[in-house]
This record gives sequence, structure tokens and C-alpha cells, in this order.
Amino acid sequence: MMLEQIGKQAKQAARVLAGADTETKNRALLAMADAIEQGAEQLLAANGEDMAAARAAGMNDTMLDRLQLTAERIRGMADGLRDVAALPDPVGRVLDDQVRPNGLHLVKVAVPIGVIAVIYEARPNVTADSAALCLKSGNAVILRGGKEAIRSNIASVELMRAALKEAGLPENCVQLVTDTTHASANALMHLNAYVDVLIPRGSQRLIRATVEQSTVPVIQTGSGVCHIYVDKAADPDMAASIIENAKTSRPSVCNAAECMLIHKDIAPVVLPKIADRLEAKHTQIRGDGRVMAILGSRAVPATVDDWGREYLDYVMAARIVDSLEEAIDYVYRYSTGHSECIVTEDPAAAEQYLNSVDAAAVYWNASTRFTDGGEFGLGAEIGISTQKLHARGPLGLNELTSMKYKIYGKGQIR
Amino acid sequence: MMLEQIGKQAKQAARVLAGADTETKNRALLAMADAIEQGAEQLLAANGEDMAAARAAGMNDTMLDRLQLTAERIRGMADGLRDVAALPDPVGRVLDDQVRPNGLHLVKVAVPIGVIAVIYEARPNVTADSAALCLKSGNAVILRGGKEAIRSNIASVELMRAALKEAGLPENCVQLVTDTTHASANALMHLNAYVDVLIPRGSQRLIRATVEQSTVPVIQTGSGVCHIYVDKAADPDMAASIIENAKTSRPSVCNAAECMLIHKDIAPVVLPKIADRLEAKHTQIRGDGRVMAILGSRAVPATVDDWGREYLDYVMAARIVDSLEEAIDYVYRYSTGHSECIVTEDPAAAEQYLNSVDAAAVYWNASTRFTDGGEFGLGAEIGISTQKLHARGPLGLNELTSMKYKIYGKGQIR
Repeated sequence: MMLEQIGKQAKQAARVLAGADTETKNRALLAMADAIEQGAEQLLAANGEDMAAARAAGMNDTMLDRLQLTAERIRGMADGLRDVAALPDPVGRVLDDQVRPNGLHLVKVAVPIGVIAVIYEARPNVTADSAALCLKSGNAVILRGGKEAIRSNIASVELMRAALKEAGLPENCVQLVTDTTHASANALMHLNAYVDVLIPRGSQRLIRATVEQSTVPVIQTGSGVCHIYVDKAADPDMAASIIENAKTSRPSVCNAAECMLIHKDIAPVVLPKIADRLEAKHTQIRGDGRVMAILGSRAVPATVDDWGREYLDYVMAARIVDSLEEAIDYVYRYSTGHSECIVTEDPAAAEQYLNSVDAAAVYWNASTRFTDGGEFGLGAEIGISTQKLHARGPLGLNELTSMKYKIYGKGQIR
Repeated sequence: MMLEQIGKQAKQAARVLAGADTETKNRALLAMADAIEQGAEQLLAANGEDMAAARAAGMNDTMLDRLQLTAERIRGMADGLRDVAALPDPVGRVLDDQVRPNGLHLVKVAVPIGVIAVIYEARPNVTADSAALCLKSGNAVILRGGKEAIRSNIASVELMRAALKEAGLPENCVQLVTDTTHASANALMHLNAYVDVLIPRGSQRLIRATVEQSTVPVIQTGSGVCHIYVDKAADPDMAASIIENAKTSRPSVCNAAECMLIHKDIAPVVLPKIADRLEAKHTQIRGDGRVMAILGSRAVPATVDDWGREYLDYVMAARIVDSLEEAIDYVYRYSTGHSECIVTEDPAAAEQYLNSVDAAAVYWNASTRFTDGGEFGLGAEIGISTQKLHARGPLGLNELTSMKYKIYGKGQIR
């Protein structure tokens, strides 16, 4: 029932927000940024309580780090809001403009989607980040964060709502679901009357559960089992550099590489170079039989569980392939369609790979780590879509809009 | 289990089809058209059996008409396939092309979605039509038609599959589910491992059931509760002409109007004109109290059930509103977001309506009947999307594609 009420309020707010001009939305975003900064003390206090509760519950250090807010991270949240204010307004973009032979003038324009619900986990900065992107794209947002960050989320949403009101927009443009039980997430997934799209941000488990259970349309994000294929015509040093970067620059993110496929002809030369780089970053290689034959004690034997696995850690699977085609087949089988890469100096092999591999981003001679809204020039992102419908790859402001046809006639009938 | 096998075959075929060039796809489409025409006798015989069974089961005349194939309709199916062959290939379109400051070259191209499942009802021509659009857009299709048309569908799919094979494409690019029970539809809705998108074509009941039950992403089509708002500044004759056309030119389709909203100031002038037009087309008006006061015995009183109702028949609801804003509010409440129209000579009122009403197509001074792939210049359509994600409005070939980024580097790391 609470969710029903939140949904209704979001839909009402969305209707007002859809008519708001760019200036009003930007003013609200800047006010929200100021409010977050000015409320830093309040936010830190709330976050301190979350941290204490999490420590008492035995949360591990990685998770504690994600949960923690600092003065610097709070400034980052505020700056994120300001960055979004500076981006172009995606609403009202003319996507197509044509006059039909009968004189009908069709103008296809970008419009807000309506109400977006975001289900996420422990990182409290996702709250401001999602609010900013949804607001700028004219969508009301319903935020349902994890229980670990609930006090931090309540504090930041309160600050942002007050700023919205001050800027002349409905405070219900941004709402937080304070019930953090499974029941509230489940209710959101079935709130079809009010929610136009649901975006899960977080673990593979959360995303899978949302896709399976939600009757509200979902934009599937995340989960990247990314491969680097080192072709026989690769530059070995470039291959080692790309693999080191793709694996170790930030192993916990979805665009990090999880598996290398090495052409048999180049393996004896390139594998030791790769091992040098990965060892320096304390990264374990789990190899198939032929990799083990080359690397010996520098690697450990892979098991069947290692293929198609997202480690999100300093571990990388490695496997020898006999041909480009075998690499493509392997990727077809194990890729999650996020980011894939071929390293080669052979343009024909590269083009075959780029065309045959079906993923949001397919790279020739560059690290998979570039799959990111900022790196793609979108300014900001709400996630990386790994699905085929609506949007694929980094989801920026444009991807948070729908469209409509405005049609100008002079009495035409059919 | 049968569905599992069909899904697997579709996915394999899709992989081959995704790499097929335009010429091969067009050759296959033309061969399919010829096969349909040359197999007309076989098709008519199968359809005759469907018709006999349907008559024996007491099917009504409208439904029998939808089910029936004639020599002319078979030619229409074949011509439909040829029309799709003549359309531009949506695959490989460059959607974006940019070089980032670090030298990475990003090319965003249209790619097939993969495997599309279509669930539909009694019209056997949907079979060829869906097969054509999916094939041209590089997608394997799984067709699940209604039991009434099963013999006709088996016959046409056999003809098309033989033609595919001859043209050098996998026959499993087009597959028919011959089990027409609810169980097979349900299994399709949960075939996430193989099916990328599900498109229901048919009754509101079918569409609603699919949206509610499917875990496979759905493109929601159909269901149009379309309104014509006659503003106080309308040209009364244009209003009457548009309403007559929108209601009576083909009442059974989703872009037909179901309700007129008349500004109180113009109602005494315009309503009798509208009644003249609708009476000539044997169309009943169901009016609110104020409409009844003007039209008297020329209308019948509406009940609460008449608001937001899709008659798909020679019946139209009518209601007086006090203002443009009231019309917008009414449409907000009852529209299914398909096609909406304002008739007015006042550009400011028109622009307010076009901006405030949230629907796939919003018309100023033109019939809602134009919402159609052909009329919008798409060449052909697989339905009209009334959802906000992926595509809204007529779904043509472009809307049956996804996208990917092909990224050209020189060893860049992040």
C-alpha cells in the first residue's frame, strides 16, 4: 500500500516534470548539489550510523568501503549533480522530421519515459547519481536502496527533496522507499500501473532476480564476462598491456576482463609477457592444459567452473585456441554481451571479429575498460545495458527518454 | 521440450542470418513470395479445412473473414514479402560515429536483435508478414499462431522454409510452433535462453496476458483508446470529417477513434454535424448528459463503462468538456497512449495539446487513422508499440534491430 501511494505520487510528479523547462531542471540540480554539500555533516552522521550497524553485522572491508561516505565522496556526489546540470537536455530532441506526400508533417521528438524505479544495493552515492540523471531526463524516480545504506539514503533524499521544492519542482520527483525488505522490491517489480521502467543496479543476483520476477519492463545492466582474444597476428606487448589494464585497473567493475583467449601460434611468446604483467599486479592466471604447459607454476589449472565466470577479482582465466573462429565460437558461448576485445595487427581478422561477436561493445586493440558513459562521451551513465532492446551499452541521458510523434495536419483523413 | 529445441534451432539460425548480406536476404524473400504464390492451391486447401473446422465450432462471421484466405489475399501475402525485399536493409546502419579525444574510434551500428517470437491469433497472413519483417531485419522468428489457422500456417511456413533453403539460408530462420495450446504460448514467454523479444499481435486480452506473464522482454502493441478533442476554436466541418473518418473508416483497428471530447462553446454547432456524419455510417453515439441535451434521441446515454472503452465497432462515446485543460486531463486518465487528436484553428491550443498529451502519436487536425507503418513511411510494420521503451508507434524494420559499438583502437588502455 505504501508503494501504491509512492507510485501514484511519482506519476503525478512526472506529469509536472515532463513540462518543466531545462532551466528549471538545472536550477533544481544545482540546488540539490548545494544541499548535499551543505548537509555534509548530517550525511556523515547518518552514514556513521550505517557504518556502525554494518560493522556490527560483520560486513567485510570491501563492502564497508562501498558503504562509506567521506567529505570527499560527498563533494563527489554534489559535483556529479552539477555535471548532470551541465549536460544537454535530452528532452525535446528532434529525432526525425518529415512531411508525407499527403502533407502531414511528422516530428518525432524525445520525451521523458515517465516514472523510473531504481533498485540498488549498498553504495549511497547511487542515490544522488540516479536522482540527477532521472531528473534531467524529465523522469520521476523511485529509489529503493539496500538496508545497509538506509540512513545515508534517507538523509541525502531529504536534502534533495527540500532543494527540489525550493526550485519549484514537486519534491516527489525523487522518492525513497524506506522499506528495505524483499517485499518492497517485489512490490516495485509489479507496480505496472505507475512505474514505466525498472533499472536494477548492483550484483548479478539482484539483476537476475529482477529480470525473472519483474512485470514492469526492466533495463538489464551490469554482469560482464569480458574476453580478450589475442590473435596470432597480435603485437605481444600491446596484448600484454591491454590484458593487464583490462584485468587489473579495477577488477570489481563489469567492464573488467575475466578471460584471455590466446591463439596457439603466439601463445609461447605472449603468455610469459602477460604473466609478467599480471604477476606484478598479484593476479592469478587459471589456465587450460596448454596454458599450463607454457606457464607451468606461474599459473594454476582451470576447472570447468572457470569458463564464463565473472571473478570481479585479481584472477583471470586463460585458454589456448586454434583459430580466430574458435575464439569467436567460445565468446559466443560464454560472453554476457558486455565488452569483448581482439588484439591483432591483421585488419581482416579484426573486422571479422568486430562483425561476428555480438556484444554491446567490441574492441579492436583497446582495453574493455573503456565501456563507460564518460569514456563514450555521454557525460554520465546510469549503468551499462547488456540487453538488446531499447539501449545497449552505457545508458546516458538520451537512453532515459522515450519518443512521440507530433503530427501537424490540415484536416487530412485517410 | 519441443519449444526448447525450436529455441535452440532459432538461435543457431539467427547467428548465420546475422551475417547474411542484403542480397541473400532479398533473394530469400523473393523466393518465399514465389513459393507462396505457386503454392496457392495447397494454401487454399489447408485454409479450407481451417474454415470448415471454424464454422463447425461456431466461429462468427467477422472472425471467419479474418481467417479466410482467397487467391487475392494470397497474392497480397506474396506482394507483402516482395515489398519488404524492396525496403532498405536496417542492419549495418551507422547510428553514430565519433573519435574520442584519446583516439578511440566508436562506430555505433544497427545489428539484428537475434530471435523474435510472435504470438498471434486467427489471421493467417500475419505468418508471412512477420516472417518477412524478421528475416529482412536479420532476426530468426518463432511463430506461434492461433489454433484456428494452424493448417493454413503449417502450409505457408512449409512453403517459406523450402524457399529459404533454396536461397541458401537456414530454414530455421522461420519456425512455426504447431502446438497451439496455452502451454506452448506460456513456454515461449519463459524461453529467455533463446528468445530475445516477444511480440504479441492480436486482442487486448492476448497482449495483457503476455505482458503480465512473460519473462522474455515484450514489445507491447495494439490496444488503442483514441480520442478526438474538438476545441472551441475548431472548424466544425473539419471536426466532423475527421471524427467520421477516425471512427468509421475501419472501426476494428487500433488507430480508430473511440471517444470524442467536445468543448462546450462549440458543442451546439458541431455535435449535430457530427451526428449527421455518424448516422450516415450507422454509428451510435453514447453521450454524457450535456451531449444528450443537444442530440436528444440521436444519441444514447453513456454509462461509466463507456469511458476509456475500446469498442472496435460502430459506436463512439461523446462528452462535453469545459476547457482544453479538462480535455487533456481526461485523455491523461483514459488514453492508452496510442493516438490522440485535437481539432482546432488555434495554434497555441494545438501546441499545448501536442506537448501535454503523452501518446505515441498526437495529431493536430488529422485523423488518428494515419498511425500506421505505411503512412509513416516505414514501408511495413509488425505492430504499433504503445509502450515507452525501445520503440513507440509503428514498428518498422529499424525498430526490429538492436545496436552495438564497434571500437577501433591503437592499443589504448585506461
